[in-house]
Amino acid sequence: MENKEISQAVISRLPRYFRYLGELKDEGIERISSQELSDIMKVTASQIRQDFNNFGGFGQQGYGYKVEYLYEEIGKILGLDKTHNLIIIGAGNLGQALANYMNFERRGFLFKGMFDNNPALYGKKIRDMQVRPMEEMEQFVKENNIDIAVLTIPKTEARAVAEKLVRNGIRGIWNFAHVDLNVPKEIQVENVHLSDSLMKLTYNINRFEQESPGC
Amino acid sequence: MENKEISQAVISRLPRYFRYLGELKDEGIERISSQELSDIMKVTASQIRQDFNNFGGFGQQGYGYKVEYLYEEIGKILGLDKTHNLIIIGAGNLGQALANYMNFERRGFLFKGMFDNNPALYGKKIRDMQVRPMEEMEQFVKENNIDIAVLTIPKTEARAVAEKLVRNGIRGIWNFAHVDLNVPKEIQVENVHLSDSLMKLTYNINRFEQESPGC
Repeated sequence: MENKEISQAVISRLPRYFRYLGELKDEGIERISSQELSDIMKVTASQIRQDFNNFGGFGQQGYGYKVEYLYEEIGKILGLDKTHNLIIIGAGNLGQALANYMNFERRGFLFKGMFDNNPALYGKKIRDMQVRPMEEMEQFVKENNIDIAVLTIPKTEARAVAEKLVRNGIRGIWNFAHVDLNVPKEIQVENVHLSDSLMKLTYNINRFEQESPGC
Repeated sequence: MENKEISQAVISRLPRYFRYLGELKDEGIERISSQELSDIMKVTASQIRQDFNNFGGFGQQGYGYKVEYLYEEIGKILGLDKTHNLIIIGAGNLGQALANYMNFERRGFLFKGMFDNNPALYGKKIRDMQVRPMEEMEQFVKENNIDIAVLTIPKTEARAVAEKLVRNGIRGIWNFAHVDLNVPKEIQVENVHLSDSLMKLTYNINRFEQESPGC
């Protein structure tokens, strides 16, 4: 693989390719042209070829892509050929929803621990994890080789918790708290700001109605 | 407001401006320059001015922006000066987490009903809503002026449910199901594909480590 810088826009599209290829593979389809892939994914064939060219191309011109090979290569690029150890911080509904999502485990994301500062939740079992007090988090991260922390806590606590995580060697934070974190650039952060996403939806609804008053 | 086409990239940034301006407002700050806003938001001042120019500019050159005015104008652009009626389809952990998130209501998002096809959940109270059987969904959407449906159901059911929603006059779908929906273009869809987001995080973690082997 070439080592040039790949834009975050391309990276953002990789999981979607991975998802479609996984479905094609499950349907027993062995080979697909960029035009066929373009039709089902509703992106242009030229976009697909450009995206794949960032990683060396994957296919032969006029011959199509081998579905399983492409699925596995994209999986490797996404780091899914390795396992990752995760903890969830915040054992409310959202934290529990993520802990119970089986597909994450199938992709090598192993949930190792869950933390909360509500004593009523201590010891509660979610999947195979017991909810632990927040005070145990730092020790746990150090001792269990935790790569990724999932933050499902209110924004008021998120920055202080992120600092502790960074001090104890975390490599990535999947942040659901409604605040942008300030962490060193070697720590990767992926934000899921749910309110932002809902507001974008209402913008598009209202915009469409202003433009189409007859609807 | 001008009626020209505004890119989805600009739209995606609006909720973040709105969030920061809300915080500044809560701190009692009345006026802010694009440079100061640039410093706290970590985007360039030129990006901020360009984004705001899509909506007429909002401010006087060299004079800064009035925080409260700007907050309210961006809120209006996002459609937050109106209320929206929502239903949640899928009363599992994720659906419950969203129903319990108070901030949505503060922004005018009113959760009116919750549906599931698991009889064990029928009648269960979440916030002020009782979980109803899926069979009641279509009637409910028609009778209660529902704008937005939140899909927190498995991907196998999502497309069929989306079709029913469209037939009954829904205007937007906030889709957490791990599949892209096929709906007419007048129906707005905002996807939250959680696995995609987690994979993007692992890509960036692995990429960073390949580039910095000494870390």
